[in-house]
Amino acid sequence: MTAPSDVIREVLARVIAQVNTLSAGGPGWTRPSYSDLESAAHTMIEAEALALGMAVHRDAAGNLFARMAGRDPAAPPLYMGSHLDTVAEGGAYDGQAGVAGALAVAATLRAQGMTPHADLVLVVTRAEESVWFPVSYAGSRAGLGLLSAEELQACRVDTGQSLAQHMRAQGFDPEEVIGLQPPAPARFLEFHIEQGPILDEAGEPYGIVTAIRGGLRYRAAQVLGSWAHSGAAPREGRADAVVAFAQLVVAMDRVWSAMLDEGHDLTVTFGRVDAAGPAHAMAKVAGRLDFCLDLRSSDAGVLDLANARLLAEIAVIETATPGIRFALGIQSRSQPARLSEAMVDFVRTGATLQGDAPRLMLSGGGHDAAAFAAAGWESVMVFVRNWNGSHCPEEAMDIEDLARAVEAVHAALLQETRA
Amino acid sequence: MTAPSDVIREVLARVIAQVNTLSAGGPGWTRPSYSDLESAAHTMIEAEALALGMAVHRDAAGNLFARMAGRDPAAPPLYMGSHLDTVAEGGAYDGQAGVAGALAVAATLRAQGMTPHADLVLVVTRAEESVWFPVSYAGSRAGLGLLSAEELQACRVDTGQSLAQHMRAQGFDPEEVIGLQPPAPARFLEFHIEQGPILDEAGEPYGIVTAIRGGLRYRAAQVLGSWAHSGAAPREGRADAVVAFAQLVVAMDRVWSAMLDEGHDLTVTFGRVDAAGPAHAMAKVAGRLDFCLDLRSSDAGVLDLANARLLAEIAVIETATPGIRFALGIQSRSQPARLSEAMVDFVRTGATLQGDAPRLMLSGGGHDAAAFAAAGWESVMVFVRNWNGSHCPEEAMDIEDLARAVEAVHAALLQETRA
Repeated sequence: MTAPSDVIREVLARVIAQVNTLSAGGPGWTRPSYSDLESAAHTMIEAEALALGMAVHRDAAGNLFARMAGRDPAAPPLYMGSHLDTVAEGGAYDGQAGVAGALAVAATLRAQGMTPHADLVLVVTRAEESVWFPVSYAGSRAGLGLLSAEELQACRVDTGQSLAQHMRAQGFDPEEVIGLQPPAPARFLEFHIEQGPILDEAGEPYGIVTAIRGGLRYRAAQVLGSWAHSGAAPREGRADAVVAFAQLVVAMDRVWSAMLDEGHDLTVTFGRVDAAGPAHAMAKVAGRLDFCLDLRSSDAGVLDLANARLLAEIAVIETATPGIRFALGIQSRSQPARLSEAMVDFVRTGATLQGDAPRLMLSGGGHDAAAFAAAGWESVMVFVRNWNGSHCPEEAMDIEDLARAVEAVHAALLQETRA
Repeated sequence: MTAPSDVIREVLARVIAQVNTLSAGGPGWTRPSYSDLESAAHTMIEAEALALGMAVHRDAAGNLFARMAGRDPAAPPLYMGSHLDTVAEGGAYDGQAGVAGALAVAATLRAQGMTPHADLVLVVTRAEESVWFPVSYAGSRAGLGLLSAEELQACRVDTGQSLAQHMRAQGFDPEEVIGLQPPAPARFLEFHIEQGPILDEAGEPYGIVTAIRGGLRYRAAQVLGSWAHSGAAPREGRADAVVAFAQLVVAMDRVWSAMLDEGHDLTVTFGRVDAAGPAHAMAKVAGRLDFCLDLRSSDAGVLDLANARLLAEIAVIETATPGIRFALGIQSRSQPARLSEAMVDFVRTGATLQGDAPRLMLSGGGHDAAAFAAAGWESVMVFVRNWNGSHCPEEAMDIEDLARAVEAVHAALLQETRA
C-alpha cells in the first residue's frame, strides 16, 4: 500500500495541475463563474470522486457533492471543499488547492481502507469569485438555500447575462434554486492559501482561521467634474475628477491608518480606476472617473464607521471644489463570519498529533466558509502559506505546505474514527 | 452687393456646419488626424476656395494652401487658417472656427471686389491634435520643413500605423516631407476659441494672443507596485499603485499652487488614468496604473522647474513605499512661443477701427501659430469667447463673437490695402 503521505502529495500535485489545464488563456488562469471552463473543472473532480467510489450529485445551482459514507449515519457529516472558478488572470492555487486538499483526504482514507466515523462529503461550489457576478458566494449561498430571486438577476460583468441565464446555460435550474432545500447544517472545512504575507513572513506552513472579514463595497462609483482644456483652464475654477479622486484616496489612506491606530480591524482598497475612456485625453481635464472601493473588516460595526468617514471625506472634497460630485452607486456587503471553536479544536487536535502548533488567524479574503458559517454550520478554514500575491498569475504556494495541512486534518479524522 | 457683415456670418455658419457633417460618430465630433474624414474636410474647404477664385495647392504633407493674389507681390503675404482634425469626441469649433474665419475674410474681400495689398493665403493644416500622433503640430511643422524622420515613425494611438503610413494612405508623400522647401517666412494669423473661461467671465467677445504656452508631457507613464488581495494584504507592506498615484496627484496639485504663488505661469493636468485592465479588480490591490501628465507654461524654464519638482515628489513617494516605482516613459515637449508684436498691433488696429479694445492674453492650448512663430513667422492668434469647456461635445461659441473678431481683421486688411 502507498503511504498516506505519498497519496496526499500525488493527489494534490495531479489535481491542481489537471484543473489548471482549463483556462481561457493567459497570463495566469481564467475560469469565469458559471462558464464552460468551470463546468469542465467540476466534471474533472467528479471523475476523481467516482474513481474513489464516492456517491456524486449536483444541486440545482450546480454545486457538486461527493459522499463517502461514514460508520455512524447519525454523526454530523464533515463537508470539505472549495471552488474552481478564478478571477480574470488569477493564480494557480486559489480554490483549486482547497478542492485538491479535500480530495486528498478522501483518497487517503480510501487508500488506507478506512471508513470515517461520520460521512465525508467533498463539496465543490460554484461562482465564489464575486468579480464576475456582483453577488457574494453565489454558488454556496444558492446551495444553502440563501440566494434571492433578485440576486439571480445580477449580470456577469463580461457577458452582461444574468446569473439565472448562466446557470441555465450550464444545465442547471435557477427556478429550483429559489426554495432549494439545503443539506442539514453540519461541519464545513476549507483549505485555502492565505492570500496574505503573515504565514510566509513568520515561516509557518499553515494556520487555522477563526474569523473571516466581511466587506462593504462600491463596485461602480464615480467622480463627476467638468471637462476642460489642460492648458487653458486655470487652476481656480477647475473641477478635475482625477484630482478629487486622488484627494479621496489619500484621505481614506489616512482614515485607514487612524482606524488601525484605534485598534480596529480594517482594509481599504481602491482596486480599479478608470479615467481612460474615449473622452479622456492627455490634453483634457477629466470630467469623470470611475472607481471601485472595497472595505473589509472582521467587525460589521467597523465597516459602518469606515463608511461614515468615507462620506465625511467626500463631503469635505465636494465642498472645497464646486463642480465636483461623487456618485457612489449601489453599496453591497458581505457579513463578517466568526468560525467554529469546535472545528478549530478539531484541526488543532490533528496538528498537535503531528507536532505542529498552527497559529490562529483572521481571513482577509471572503470564502465559502463564511457562507456556511452564516447558515449555522460549524465551519473552519485552514490557511496555507503563499507568496507573490494572490489573484494574480505569480501567486505561489508549496505543495508540501498544503500536504502538511492536509495531513493534520487527516490525523484529526483518524483520531475521530478511532475514538 | 451683400453687406460684408452678412457675408462673414453666412460663411461662418455654413462652413462650420458643413465641416461638422463629417464625423466618425458621436457624442461630439471625431475627425482623426490623417483620416479619410480629415481629408474630406480639406476637400470641402478646397471647393470653397476654388469658388472664390483662389489658387489651390497642397504640400507633400497634405496641408492645403489657397492663394488670393495681392497688389504688391513683394509685400509679406498674410497666411490665415487652422486645422480640421479633432480630438476623439471633440467640439464643434476647435479648428473649424479658425478655417471658417479665414475663409470668411477672403469671401468678404471677394464680395467687395477688393484686392488685398499683400497675398492672402488660406492655410488648412493637418494633424494639429496631438492626441492621435504623439507629435506636436505634425502637419504645420511638416509644412514648415521641421518634421524629423523619427517623428514620421510615430504611431497613431488607435490604428498603430505610423504618421508616414497615414500620410501615404491619404495620398501624400512622407519621403518628400523630409527636406520639404517651406514657404518663405511671412505673416500668420489664426482665429481660435479660447478653450478657457477668461473672455467668457469678463464678458468680452474676443482677445489677442501674445504668447502660447509650451508643454512638457509624459504620455505613457506608469506606477508599478505589487498585486495583492484587497482583504488579506495588511496596510504595512502594500505597494498599491493607486495610492502612490493619488499621492503624486495631490503632491503635484500642491506644487502647482505653490508655483502660482511664486508668480510662475503653469498648468498641471493628469488627464488620463488607467487602472482598469483585465488584471485589475475590486478585490485586488493594483500592481500597476498607467497615466498621462501634461505640464504647460509660457516659460520653458518653468517647465523644467515643475519637472524637477515632479521628480522630487516621485522620489519621496518611492522612498516612503518600498515596492513602488514610477516609470515616466518618454518625455515630449512643445516650446512656448512668443507671438509677434507687429501682428498684435495689426489686429488691434482693425479692432480699434470698429470701437473694440480686445485684451491681450495667453494661450493655454498649443496651436499651429506656435509652430509658425517658432519657424520665424510673424504670428498672432485671435481668441474667441467660448464656454462649456473645449475638446468635448458641449464646447460652445457664439458665431456673432467670431464674426466680430473676423470683422476686426477684415478692417485691418482694408486699412492696410488703403494705406
